Amino acid sequence: MTVILEPGRTAGHALTAPYYLDPEVHEFDLAAIFARQWLFVATEAEIREPGDYLTVEVGRWSVILLRDDDGTINALHNVCRHRGSRVLAESRGSTGNLVCGYHQWTYAQDGRLLHAGQQAPGFDKSCFGLKKVAVRCVAGLIHICLADEPPADFDEVADRIRPYLAPHGLDRAKVATQVDLVEPANWKLVMENNRECYHCEAGHPELTCTFFPTYGYAVEDIPPRLVPAHARYVRAEAELRRTCDERGLPHELIEELHGRPSAFRIAREALDGAGESYTRDGRAACRKLLGELDTPRLGRLTLHHQPNSWFHFLGDHAVTFSALPLAADRTVVRTTWLVHEDAVEGVDYDVETLTEVWRATNEQDAELVSRAQAGVASPAYEPGPYAPNEYQVDAFVTWYLDRVREYVTP
Amino acid sequence: MTVILEPGRTAGHALTAPYYLDPEVHEFDLAAIFARQWLFVATEAEIREPGDYLTVEVGRWSVILLRDDDGTINALHNVCRHRGSRVLAESRGSTGNLVCGYHQWTYAQDGRLLHAGQQAPGFDKSCFGLKKVAVRCVAGLIHICLADEPPADFDEVADRIRPYLAPHGLDRAKVATQVDLVEPANWKLVMENNRECYHCEAGHPELTCTFFPTYGYAVEDIPPRLVPAHARYVRAEAELRRTCDERGLPHELIEELHGRPSAFRIAREALDGAGESYTRDGRAACRKLLGELDTPRLGRLTLHHQPNSWFHFLGDHAVTFSALPLAADRTVVRTTWLVHEDAVEGVDYDVETLTEVWRATNEQDAELVSRAQAGVASPAYEPGPYAPNEYQVDAFVTWYLDRVREYVTP
Amino acid sequence: MTVILEPGRTAGHALTAPYYLDPEVHEFDLAAIFARQWLFVATEAEIREPGDYLTVEVGRWSVILLRDDDGTINALHNVCRHRGSRVLAESRGSTGNLVCGYHQWTYAQDGRLLHAGQQAPGFDKSCFGLKKVAVRCVAGLIHICLADEPPADFDEVADRIRPYLAPHGLDRAKVATQVDLVEPANWKLVMENNRECYHCEAGHPELTCTFFPTYGYAVEDIPPRLVPAHARYVRAEAELRRTCDERGLPHELIEELHGRPSAFRIAREALDGAGESYTRDGRAACRKLLGELDTPRLGRLTLHHQPNSWFHFLGDHAVTFSALPLAADRTVVRTTWLVHEDAVEGVDYDVETLTEVWRATNEQDAELVSRAQAGVASPAYEPGPYAPNEYQVDAFVTWYLDRVREYVTP
Repeated sequence: MTVILEPGRTAGHALTAPYYLDPEVHEFDLAAIFARQWLFVATEAEIREPGDYLTVEVGRWSVILLRDDDGTINALHNVCRHRGSRVLAESRGSTGNLVCGYHQWTYAQDGRLLHAGQQAPGFDKSCFGLKKVAVRCVAGLIHICLADEPPADFDEVADRIRPYLAPHGLDRAKVATQVDLVEPANWKLVMENNRECYHCEAGHPELTCTFFPTYGYAVEDIPPRLVPAHARYVRAEAELRRTCDERGLPHELIEELHGRPSAFRIAREALDGAGESYTRDGRAACRKLLGELDTPRLGRLTLHHQPNSWFHFLGDHAVTFSALPLAADRTVVRTTWLVHEDAVEGVDYDVETLTEVWRATNEQDAELVSRAQAGVASPAYEPGPYAPNEYQVDAFVTWYLDRVREYVTP
Repeated sequence: MTVILEPGRTAGHALTAPYYLDPEVHEFDLAAIFARQWLFVATEAEIREPGDYLTVEVGRWSVILLRDDDGTINALHNVCRHRGSRVLAESRGSTGNLVCGYHQWTYAQDGRLLHAGQQAPGFDKSCFGLKKVAVRCVAGLIHICLADEPPADFDEVADRIRPYLAPHGLDRAKVATQVDLVEPANWKLVMENNRECYHCEAGHPELTCTFFPTYGYAVEDIPPRLVPAHARYVRAEAELRRTCDERGLPHELIEELHGRPSAFRIAREALDGAGESYTRDGRAACRKLLGELDTPRLGRLTLHHQPNSWFHFLGDHAVTFSALPLAADRTVVRTTWLVHEDAVEGVDYDVETLTEVWRATNEQDAELVSRAQAGVASPAYEPGPYAPNEYQVDAFVTWYLDRVREYVTP
Repeated sequence: MTVILEPGRTAGHALTAPYYLDPEVHEFDLAAIFARQWLFVATEAEIREPGDYLTVEVGRWSVILLRDDDGTINALHNVCRHRGSRVLAESRGSTGNLVCGYHQWTYAQDGRLLHAGQQAPGFDKSCFGLKKVAVRCVAGLIHICLADEPPADFDEVADRIRPYLAPHGLDRAKVATQVDLVEPANWKLVMENNRECYHCEAGHPELTCTFFPTYGYAVEDIPPRLVPAHARYVRAEAELRRTCDERGLPHELIEELHGRPSAFRIAREALDGAGESYTRDGRAACRKLLGELDTPRLGRLTLHHQPNSWFHFLGDHAVTFSALPLAADRTVVRTTWLVHEDAVEGVDYDVETLTEVWRATNEQDAELVSRAQAGVASPAYEPGPYAPNEYQVDAFVTWYLDRVREYVTP
């Protein structure tokens, strides 16, 4: 895997082809990125009641996330300590103790082995509890880290983003719906696609109903036809800042997308149209607002975590996204729409309207990244230069290569 | 493939993950185990008439088993000596000579090349017969060995098991039905699962109708609730031994599951319920008994061959099982139900009742081993200890690693 | 890949198994053969109008063939110079400029970059045109070469075959229909199968309606039952030569199937039956003849190009074939039937009758090569000797191994 040992990337350019194609790089990425970094994998809303669990597949790992009777969320490897069977075969459910379906070894909700039948004298149950996985819940977002020594900078990041997220009350949210979309592309192409909106104008007609048409333009480059839109944008931003300040909602941009393991970006930006939500006309899709919010005109609070997640928090709902690699050329993107736990489907919101924009956007992105995957597979492919408005793509690639170097030469 | 060169197994524990996952180990197993050991692959009942043949796929090998006009069973490589085409494309049928479908090279039933069209002068037909495969028929069970020098100890094993099998008259049996089930697991997990009944109580409700509930318990560990069942078991065993002795049917346990290439175990054990057969109530599923047997109350005669087969011979029918690896994570298990050749379907037996227990049991096993395969794939997997009643699993693994060592350092 | 470095082939015998099975050899063949040699990939009839294009997939390459507004056929790599996306996602269509669907980089029909949005000052469009692929059109047949230095001998071959092909007027032909058939075999088995008719008598009942039954026989080996057929053949050949000579149509056999990169064979041979075309009765399948031809009794003009194509030009229609490897064990064969551009479907021809013989023949060949693929996969496979009438198979293999040696030791 020479590619990994000597990246040889031209600054400001895309990665070379093997990074997107090579099954060995896929294995490397699982080991160097997905087994070492903090990953957003689920929301607390998915396991609201004691005993609720879900299993998350990260590469060949299977992790149980289970809310125990005290409300604590435990993360455990889903591997029986006897002969390695999956303990829980379902992807979600509710349980008391955890009973392995093979030989009925029985574990407590925190992983302690309670019972194993017909053992020889001297068998020590305390040696055979389910292995634990590091876990952090941040304002309703569940992050895990498979490493024995997780990156230490995550807690500081958590402290900085929590004030932005907390007012949206995700701890009192419920899942309106969730969609898993398998995109036929390497996970890095999926992430690079997510990190720029250079493709939005032509590629995402539904999304750009609420994105200002000047999105991504340097002010000095705004063409005359877009000057009125720019004026509208400036007014909307000023109003948004005022609205936030009045309510004590933080809105300063923090952008630390590389230079640290738990790299991130958080920003609150105005939306075009009615300015309330991701809908065709920009109006809220849920009448009951999140948390204790008293206005839907809060634009979008956007959060990016390296390596694999992004989020949009609106006044009326939130959407979370996590990307997990399935193979060198297949990535599953899980999208979850959250609304206030008291919002009633059919009364306060309907799923179709709530999800229309991002369902369409995700499917368009899947098509775009599939073309990118097919294209970089050609031996004629040569990495080209990122445009200035693709600087977040460059940040993602820079962050990735920093982690690669860290892993190869610790 | 360091894993193979330095097994590094903890005694009494399961194998490490690569043995179950690595495509290179799959290739190694084909070369070191399946191309070197005697394999049960079919029953004589499947090719009863002269000219009847079947083809058996073992890894990339394809072998023709054909009963010739003298009743002898020939085993031949299904590879034309011209340009390598499969000679017989069907998985079973009846034929006189063997004609390759590509350029009509024609072979006798024993593999001699009889005709090849339009050859240059000097072409010597005697050099181009189909290659032979070693074959042994033991009381109706067909075993082949792909090696040039098959393990020499098989014939002694055959002589020892023949007296147990012969009274069941498999040479006068017919196939009631046959099922191929592809299990999503490594062949060794399939075999390990077969070699213990620790999972039976919870996993096989149909099978345990006729397995005594004390199966697998050390006598001193039998819990109070099972004392009556144990007394029933002791009585049934005594009766079975008496019944066998009166008829000269051998019933002593022979257990040589490792320590030799052609390792095996044979045992006759009583069944619970009516004690006659593998049915819900334990009564015979076929009115016409096998061979010349005069009672169905013969319990089960169980035979295990390393590496890939197991058998149950009852008074009224027999069931044979062979497992063949398709990939590191896929194994086909072929199950064949045999009854007396004069038994009439719909009169003496019906296929549904005859096959109900083992169809269900096989499907349950497929589910259990799929969970084991998924589980050992997690990097968090660590081999755990076998329970005392899993000693046959340990014997299988020990036998396997002995063969590995023999192959690596002859 | 020892196999490639030390071929170790017995002269006159088939290749050893890894050549047909090994994924590494598949990659090697793509690099050493398909990325270096001239390949027939399409006919001009498929892109008749300015702006018409098609994309051709050769291994991981994707190539655009586009007829520009001057009628010139351009071959361009289908890879955007920005981040590598496929520029054209459809396999055929019509377009003015070429606009990449991802970020709308826009290229002229000759590949020049015309527009890329929102670039930093100093971005030089002239550095980012689509990369070109070498292309040659020979009497309506489009050949490409992916190498930077294509084999120089192709132009001489083109000059020698053009006089044979030109009278069939493929530049004024249209596509009657086209079929892609994925054959489950290595591309070399597909080609070897194409290069002999030893299998035709038993394997191709429809095709042998118009192939003389003595096809492939040395004159001295013709069996008594075929003497009348041979006499018919001799008469038909004499008549064909006369017909051609009267019209100035070349008919001499040229056979240079190895010994040069752009190896080929061209021959005009009489057909049996009515002698006009590939139909059940040998009569023309299209009333309107190709080009300016005035008789359908022109037998078949057959062209073979190494490595991957073959052609039949008749008086009334032409059939082109190209084989492209998809994997070590999968090959796509594209068959295209061409008729005069003025021929009217339903009046001059019907597609069913026109394509019946070669549809059936292709499907039979797919079945035959699938058996060959399965057979050579057996470890018992040992390459056998070619019969004398398989000399063109031997020539193909010889040509192939010459290219292998050239690549390995330039």
